[in-house]
Amino acid sequence: MEAFSDGVLAIIITIMVLEIKVPHGATFSVLKPLIPIALSYLLSFIYLAIYWNNHHHMMHTVKHVSGDILWANLHLLFWLSLVPFVTGWMGENHFAPIPTALYGMILLMAAIAYYILQSRIIKNHGRDSLLARAIGKDLKGKISPVLYIIAIASTWINTWIAGSLYLLVALMWLIPDKRIEIIFKGDDR
Amino acid sequence: MEAFSDGVLAIIITIMVLEIKVPHGATFSVLKPLIPIALSYLLSFIYLAIYWNNHHHMMHTVKHVSGDILWANLHLLFWLSLVPFVTGWMGENHFAPIPTALYGMILLMAAIAYYILQSRIIKNHGRDSLLARAIGKDLKGKISPVLYIIAIASTWINTWIAGSLYLLVALMWLIPDKRIEIIFKGDDR
Amino acid sequence: MEAFSDGVLAIIITIMVLEIKVPHGATFSVLKPLIPIALSYLLSFIYLAIYWNNHHHMMHTVKHVSGDILWANLHLLFWLSLVPFVTGWMGENHFAPIPTALYGMILLMAAIAYYILQSRIIKNHGRDSLLARAIGKDLKGKISPVLYIIAIASTWINTWIAGSLYLLVALMWLIPDKRIEIIFKGDDR
Amino acid sequence: MEAFSDGVLAIIITIMVLEIKVPHGATFSVLKPLIPIALSYLLSFIYLAIYWNNHHHMMHTVKHVSGDILWANLHLLFWLSLVPFVTGWMGENHFAPIPTALYGMILLMAAIAYYILQSRIIKNHGRDSLLARAIGKDLKGKISPVLYIIAIASTWINTWIAGSLYLLVALMWLIPDKRIEIIFKGDDR
Repeated sequence: MEAFSDGVLAIIITIMVLEIKVPHGATFSVLKPLIPIALSYLLSFIYLAIYWNNHHHMMHTVKHVSGDILWANLHLLFWLSLVPFVTGWMGENHFAPIPTALYGMILLMAAIAYYILQSRIIKNHGRDSLLARAIGKDLKGKISPVLYIIAIASTWINTWIAGSLYLLVALMWLIPDKRIEIIFKGDDR
Repeated sequence: MEAFSDGVLAIIITIMVLEIKVPHGATFSVLKPLIPIALSYLLSFIYLAIYWNNHHHMMHTVKHVSGDILWANLHLLFWLSLVPFVTGWMGENHFAPIPTALYGMILLMAAIAYYILQSRIIKNHGRDSLLARAIGKDLKGKISPVLYIIAIASTWINTWIAGSLYLLVALMWLIPDKRIEIIFKGDDR
Repeated sequence: MEAFSDGVLAIIITIMVLEIKVPHGATFSVLKPLIPIALSYLLSFIYLAIYWNNHHHMMHTVKHVSGDILWANLHLLFWLSLVPFVTGWMGENHFAPIPTALYGMILLMAAIAYYILQSRIIKNHGRDSLLARAIGKDLKGKISPVLYIIAIASTWINTWIAGSLYLLVALMWLIPDKRIEIIFKGDDR
Repeated sequence: MEAFSDGVLAIIITIMVLEIKVPHGATFSVLKPLIPIALSYLLSFIYLAIYWNNHHHMMHTVKHVSGDILWANLHLLFWLSLVPFVTGWMGENHFAPIPTALYGMILLMAAIAYYILQSRIIKNHGRDSLLARAIGKDLKGKISPVLYIIAIASTWINTWIAGSLYLLVALMWLIPDKRIEIIFKGDDR
């Protein structure tokens, strides 16, 4: 399951670049409308990289795969597979309200799917399991959906608030925390 | 062979999203024609996930790969590789009769290909093999093609009958049965 | 190197389906121009499957990878990566002479690249190596390029001669020979 | 991390061919505008193959993955993921100045990202590590960015100077050096 998920994430992160269509003309001016597309691509690249990273480490703690973990995982991959589409739509429309809100919706659904997957793994492996200890109170996991919802609502006022919030959540996850360290040490044991 | 098949299935499931073309315009109204496309995408995602899951577990029971198993496997991958195309065609035409019938044809061919592959593996590994015991009477495997044929025929009356039948078969396979459990236990031995 | 090559081949075989563009309209008549595209897709699918199969088994005999084997392998992957393009061009133009000839050219270049790779591996592993014994006189490997050249030349007369020859070479490779058997036995030792 | 990176590189190198759009018409004349596209494809194929090769060997020397190595690696993959886009733009515009300069910019950013990744690995593994010894003075790594900058500047005079410099750097890396040999020997120990 780990290899399949890693494969799907590697493909999603890579085919996303196909949404940046090669422009006609060879001047600087044709590159200008590509700037928001490139920005949205960069944002999604960071998100997918974070998901891959966290997912990969979480999977390392799974000792026995059951049917519910398997489908919770596919549920997560489903929402992540829609990231290239919403990235392209948001970028092409220069962060217009509705595409920017839909982008947040997909991030929200992916966050919920990740939470479900995590809960299932902890349930199957026990409260004292490596993952349960690594997650701890899971502050980041709880704040992220709240920030997504605020971001989605803010698109009606100004989409740059939403864009900044998406970036903020991404940066929040980029800052290393104890989780991965604990999992790594757990592996060494 | 298992890694190659897993890779191909991971790619098929992911590139399918490329059939959801980014629409022009940033309003809710441009999303409306995407609803049938998203529905057909979801249906195919579930089907490919089921195929990956069952295929992956079946491959685990294979002890020795022979030429006929290898080509039976490639035959299955061929039909599954056409799923993104028929998914796109059915979705773009809002479940019109002919695309919906063709979608069922591909599902039918994939089901037959899966049956052939399964039979070859059982033949090579013996009636007492892990897979043979896990499959048992293979009720699901026998009912599915019948339901596909009824679905294909029903497209001339109402394509929603066909759509419902495709969904029914998918749900039938989603319900866990003893198969995978037996294979898992077989692995532990 | 084996995993990378397997990955590239899995991607080539799968993205090829993206060349079958979803047609506009939902009638049987829009499917008609897709028949030559589907035929050329099927032909290329068989070719890439054969290449994957033979390549995979050949790689199993490689004990030490040197720089020349590595680049001979990438040279082969380069020509195979062009298969989706020529398949799409030949199919869309209903097996017109020039696309059909170019298709044969790519097959010819891939065959030569495969031969170079094979020779390098044998050179590095010795005349008594597993691969050298498995290949034997390599009749198929020697006849194939000749048949490709005849096929390319025949496109000026009738492209169905070329198409039949491409199919003939594919079928010739599909028939199991002693090669793989010897490699498999060599693995068991 | 190695499997994920290898996967991403395999996908980048393969989807790049999708930028060579199947032309309408079946004459030699429609192939003519494809020549610069094919040339830029070949150049990028060689570059990505070199990156895969060097990256793969470098990863083999990594004993412990830390957060900074992980993100330095993703930073490199980000720039490499843009190669299909700039390849398509440069090829379609027949090596026009601005696309050719942008192509060099991406190569430059990828080279810098590779240098950062390499430095982080050496920092984490010590000056006496296998990688540090294999790299040595890293002449190629230091000359390449300089040549890229000269190439980018030269696009204002004549883009063929830039094209030749890109090819020169690629050939420079193709010539085997002691690096990989040292790593291979290091593996055997």
